[in-house]
Amino acid sequence: MRDEAAEDHRLRTKRRRVRPPSARAQAREEEIYAAAAHIFCKHGYVAASLQDIADAVGILKGSLYYYIDSKEDLLFGITKQIHEYSRENLEASQAHEGSAEERIKAFVLGHILSFDMQDVSWVRVFYTEYQFLSGERYDEIVAHRHEYEAHLRVLIDQGKCEGFVCPDVDTWLAATGILTMINSVYMWFQRKGRLSIADVAAGYTRMAVQGLRCPPGHAHG
Amino acid sequence: MRDEAAEDHRLRTKRRRVRPPSARAQAREEEIYAAAAHIFCKHGYVAASLQDIADAVGILKGSLYYYIDSKEDLLFGITKQIHEYSRENLEASQAHEGSAEERIKAFVLGHILSFDMQDVSWVRVFYTEYQFLSGERYDEIVAHRHEYEAHLRVLIDQGKCEGFVCPDVDTWLAATGILTMINSVYMWFQRKGRLSIADVAAGYTRMAVQGLRCPPGHAHG
Repeated sequence: MRDEAAEDHRLRTKRRRVRPPSARAQAREEEIYAAAAHIFCKHGYVAASLQDIADAVGILKGSLYYYIDSKEDLLFGITKQIHEYSRENLEASQAHEGSAEERIKAFVLGHILSFDMQDVSWVRVFYTEYQFLSGERYDEIVAHRHEYEAHLRVLIDQGKCEGFVCPDVDTWLAATGILTMINSVYMWFQRKGRLSIADVAAGYTRMAVQGLRCPPGHAHG
Repeated sequence: MRDEAAEDHRLRTKRRRVRPPSARAQAREEEIYAAAAHIFCKHGYVAASLQDIADAVGILKGSLYYYIDSKEDLLFGITKQIHEYSRENLEASQAHEGSAEERIKAFVLGHILSFDMQDVSWVRVFYTEYQFLSGERYDEIVAHRHEYEAHLRVLIDQGKCEGFVCPDVDTWLAATGILTMINSVYMWFQRKGRLSIADVAAGYTRMAVQGLRCPPGHAHG
């Protein structure tokens, strides 16, 4: 029982929080997640090791087990965080009682603005590494994505009823085009670049909304 | 000199075409590139081996050296092929003397329609594996991409002069949004799906062109 796996197991079963975490423990936990996001983003989840993360934070690998049970817990925590922003945006849009045009504007804008709330590496990990989650965790993230995409299609269909969206628009294709565009901001966005996240959000929202309208002079269905 | 590298070297220096390839050799060459595209697409360029490709075609690995010098030649051949379609689209657009609106329509439509000309795995390899090309080959592909992207920005600026594109539009952001949307078709397009490539091309072209206009009632610059 002297090998690394046994030692890991010992540390894992030893530590258990019985009281709420102290402010110091909470700060350390945040530091660990931030380091994990950077390392998963840079090397990929599969290639990254807990040792790399412990080294980045400057703690012993064994100390990580005070906060997590496995590397996957870190991935799930990161994914879950971005997922929460996205869930808030979805719920706000579901509760929004305006016109389809107003709702699509708010939904697209809210989606992109959430990118400013955290380090871009969290968003990148969310989009590129969630596939390595297992079982129910994976299912939860995928189910949310499907719900999110389906919601945009509902808004576009509402827009067709209200006459704001051109009847020629294929709802699925338009939703896919908009989501592709807004989901890829993390690939190139730079905090210190010429465009702020607000500029990007306003520009893409304008394009998305405007792109759904009929061309000038189009004979309505 | 009995190891695999030495044997590879012998085969590589032995074969040299002195006459134009026969129809049979040409058909075999096409088969090899098609197999390489599938294998690079499935396993990634780095993980794929010439042995995998030889096995897929049903020939000896040594016979590949009649057609190529290295694995990279296959990647370059595939990339070059898609590059050619893209170059044709760029040149057609440069020669097009119509309005910005007509030129953007033709450029976006032509871009997406090129996806129908070949197996989607070629396009996927082009977008995801070109980074493994070395030296001048890499530079050639990257320079072409930059030229392609810059051309769309020129068309959008022409559209601003002509009053078709809204003066509020950020040219760089709009070009990035359109290219993101149209470059990602290969990620989800299925030949036997509900939408034909012509449907996708028409739908995305409509969205892209329409998305550049001012919203109704917008006070022009």
